[in-house]
Amino acid sequence: MNQAPNLQDIASALGATLQCRLGMADKIPTGIAPLDTAGPMELSFLSNSKYTSQLATTQALAVILAPDQAALCPTNSLIMTDPYVGFAKAGKFFDKTPLLDLGIAKSAVIHPMAVIGEGARIGNFVSIGQGVKIGKNCQIHPGCVIGDEVLIGDEVILYPQVVLYHQVQIGHRCIIHSTAVIGSDGFGLANDQGRWVKIPQLGSVRIGNDVEIGASTTIDRGALNDTVIEDGVKLDNQIQIGHNDIIGAHTAMAGGTMVAGSVTIGRNCLIGGQSAISGHLKIADRVILTGGSSVPSDLSEAGVYSSSGKAQPYKTWFRTLANLNRLDKLCARIKALERIIHDKKHDRE
Amino acid sequence: MNQAPNLQDIASALGATLQCRLGMADKIPTGIAPLDTAGPMELSFLSNSKYTSQLATTQALAVILAPDQAALCPTNSLIMTDPYVGFAKAGKFFDKTPLLDLGIAKSAVIHPMAVIGEGARIGNFVSIGQGVKIGKNCQIHPGCVIGDEVLIGDEVILYPQVVLYHQVQIGHRCIIHSTAVIGSDGFGLANDQGRWVKIPQLGSVRIGNDVEIGASTTIDRGALNDTVIEDGVKLDNQIQIGHNDIIGAHTAMAGGTMVAGSVTIGRNCLIGGQSAISGHLKIADRVILTGGSSVPSDLSEAGVYSSSGKAQPYKTWFRTLANLNRLDKLCARIKALERIIHDKKHDRE
Amino acid sequence: MNQAPNLQDIASALGATLQCRLGMADKIPTGIAPLDTAGPMELSFLSNSKYTSQLATTQALAVILAPDQAALCPTNSLIMTDPYVGFAKAGKFFDKTPLLDLGIAKSAVIHPMAVIGEGARIGNFVSIGQGVKIGKNCQIHPGCVIGDEVLIGDEVILYPQVVLYHQVQIGHRCIIHSTAVIGSDGFGLANDQGRWVKIPQLGSVRIGNDVEIGASTTIDRGALNDTVIEDGVKLDNQIQIGHNDIIGAHTAMAGGTMVAGSVTIGRNCLIGGQSAISGHLKIADRVILTGGSSVPSDLSEAGVYSSSGKAQPYKTWFRTLANLNRLDKLCARIKALERIIHDKKHDRE
Repeated sequence: MNQAPNLQDIASALGATLQCRLGMADKIPTGIAPLDTAGPMELSFLSNSKYTSQLATTQALAVILAPDQAALCPTNSLIMTDPYVGFAKAGKFFDKTPLLDLGIAKSAVIHPMAVIGEGARIGNFVSIGQGVKIGKNCQIHPGCVIGDEVLIGDEVILYPQVVLYHQVQIGHRCIIHSTAVIGSDGFGLANDQGRWVKIPQLGSVRIGNDVEIGASTTIDRGALNDTVIEDGVKLDNQIQIGHNDIIGAHTAMAGGTMVAGSVTIGRNCLIGGQSAISGHLKIADRVILTGGSSVPSDLSEAGVYSSSGKAQPYKTWFRTLANLNRLDKLCARIKALERIIHDKKHDRE
Repeated sequence: MNQAPNLQDIASALGATLQCRLGMADKIPTGIAPLDTAGPMELSFLSNSKYTSQLATTQALAVILAPDQAALCPTNSLIMTDPYVGFAKAGKFFDKTPLLDLGIAKSAVIHPMAVIGEGARIGNFVSIGQGVKIGKNCQIHPGCVIGDEVLIGDEVILYPQVVLYHQVQIGHRCIIHSTAVIGSDGFGLANDQGRWVKIPQLGSVRIGNDVEIGASTTIDRGALNDTVIEDGVKLDNQIQIGHNDIIGAHTAMAGGTMVAGSVTIGRNCLIGGQSAISGHLKIADRVILTGGSSVPSDLSEAGVYSSSGKAQPYKTWFRTLANLNRLDKLCARIKALERIIHDKKHDRE
Repeated sequence: MNQAPNLQDIASALGATLQCRLGMADKIPTGIAPLDTAGPMELSFLSNSKYTSQLATTQALAVILAPDQAALCPTNSLIMTDPYVGFAKAGKFFDKTPLLDLGIAKSAVIHPMAVIGEGARIGNFVSIGQGVKIGKNCQIHPGCVIGDEVLIGDEVILYPQVVLYHQVQIGHRCIIHSTAVIGSDGFGLANDQGRWVKIPQLGSVRIGNDVEIGASTTIDRGALNDTVIEDGVKLDNQIQIGHNDIIGAHTAMAGGTMVAGSVTIGRNCLIGGQSAISGHLKIADRVILTGGSSVPSDLSEAGVYSSSGKAQPYKTWFRTLANLNRLDKLCARIKALERIIHDKKHDRE
């Protein structure tokens, strides 16, 4: 954007209907903020009905909201069916994340056999290997290491210290955060009489378009075939994706989730944080997993699944844990009671 | 310290009472070690009563201990009410962690518009962006990347490969370990008919004074407001702090804990390792959480909480898990028995 | 290997018996692939009986398999008792991981008091401190930071961005993946009236021979003594090893496992992913822990242990969790029933 957008520009970008007092459509908002703190030159939004009561007193210049809230809005409105999407899209206009300088930093070391697309912004101490191809308008922040024969699409952002091992492929418009590692060896070992023999990891990692990968997330290369992250997948921080996993398009996974090897996760799944998914299994499309759940076997139908705990006062939990570990005995006691009762009934019959 | 301290110097530094044989107050200990391995020129300490029996035979030059243990000490004593704190403070005198060379390494690249305080030690391949301000006597180890407009206080240590995204603020005397990432984008997404729209993360991260952050820990920047880590917070390795979290002063959190977004954790909490804290909730001051616990909702009172498991022999656990998943049926069976018994009692009445 | 090996060479390297049609022993396979996708110039293997049916129709040039499968093999066979080990060993012949250039990259900064062994390959932006000694034929990839007085054996590979703090020791033939951090401070704190006092971490980390360490794994230095990783240990990604831990030889640990401080784990253990091991405890040799288990106290006998959950449909789990939290009441109800029944039996007697 060469010029800051006014309310009308923003409404057009969001596909929203602008309901505006005379002359206000030209006003240029200076930022975006929650209803209760937005100032008179700021945009706001109402996407959660729990905040509806704040609408009456908001000082915002304009509010992005749903059609059924528009009548209650004391200020200018940008009306659209999904105001949360509107907020996401409007946020871009106020994003002040600094751009790297255009061109290649003097301290970067780029192999003469690498091809860098036009519009590239490459920071300090970036190392780019032989045979690498990078598309147009990419930003490669300081300290990134790009191994030999890596392929990167257009408009990709690698934040500082990202590592891409050799031959990894990244699609268009991906964002990868700092210290993420893509293409490290899968954890493949054969046991030879008590000693481990490393299984060379001969595959690579292929990442689709519009994928975002969080800080400190690791994605291992495949053993024979590739590990695959499909289009539109969003991975939070501190996630581990094992070798030969396939993560279906538009699946989102929250922080700290561990996915073992050879797992296939469907499309449009929501995987809660710190989940643990065992190896060699399949999860269907549109599975939702609450945070902290364990998946030891296939989940073959869409739906919400859970095995998350809930912290209790310590003494209560301590008793529960003790009871849990004698559940077998409790079952036996119930069975014994049932037998007595049943025998007695039988006696009387 | 320009000169190695003798027992009297150490006692003064700890606020301990030195009980010493004639002429020994000038002795300079060469190190600090456990009671059973300390040599005759080494300092030791007794903070856990389980090791009291080792006191009688220790070879140590002197022992840091509590008043009620002093009578049992066969060697010189540094007497204070909390000998473990004494050990911590005395340890500094024997810390041989090498300092970086004074000044700025030739290979570092520092933006001309950055301001570096006096006494700085800046290592190889450090990249410092525009508008950065760094206080006095800071150590920035090799490979750190400091984004534009970051503010850093005095006497801060960044170990190798720390990444600070743009606009992050760090207080005085903080220590940040290798590959920690501060200020990466929060995991904010709006779903637009099956496709994810990124919510720009317009906030930053503010870190107070005397905070320590472990290796590979990640702290996301806020969506609209900032993520806040208050004074004296201690974060271990491999932790994730989500966007807009507020971590109260002097709270300590052990390794692998995942904190989702918009969580407020109180002051002086102790969060055990690999805990999972769900988003949009509040934890009171002085909450203690045992390792591996899950917190899906508010904990509004101080106290100890837990939902941690306890590994069992596999067959036992397998049966427990099966029983767990038919608890509902067990409840029904108990209810049925109760009805029969009750009916019979009723019959007889 | 200067020349690509033929079937006979590979059989010799594996210690396998080659059962071959005339003239085929000289054939040079071009790769290794699963039975169902291997082409006519590729090697394959059969190590899991579940794939036996694929043997009849495989197009592979030769198959590594067990003696009892040899009769069923329609093509050339490499016969050995453990074909999975054979696959691991054969894989090396087809590993195309690029080598760094021989010598030291111009952009690396190596302290004049460091000693680098012959055959070294050192990449861009590597920083090597004072007093470091590196053995023969090591590969140090771009961006690694090696602190003062670190000792590294022969034939070690450090992938990009590995950090070794001062005084860490690494044995021969170790492989360390990107952003792993070895030797960061242990999480040692003493509480001084609500404020934390840091306990200086004066020990180091000693790593044996043939150890592999995954991406983003962190190993803390000891408080007084060293943290020790014995020979042949294999650590996956995203693991935390606390200060003063001792990990026994040939133990393998999967991703995301958190080991608190002062833990001793035996030899030849298998620790499943995302396990949580509390501090100050001991695990015997040959313990197997299923993924996601918690170990709050000693496991003093070899065997398989578990406390892993299993995700359920949400409503089912929600009821189970509710029942779990009233287990105490269920126990009381069973007891009450038993008392009634017992009293009645007593009445009749």
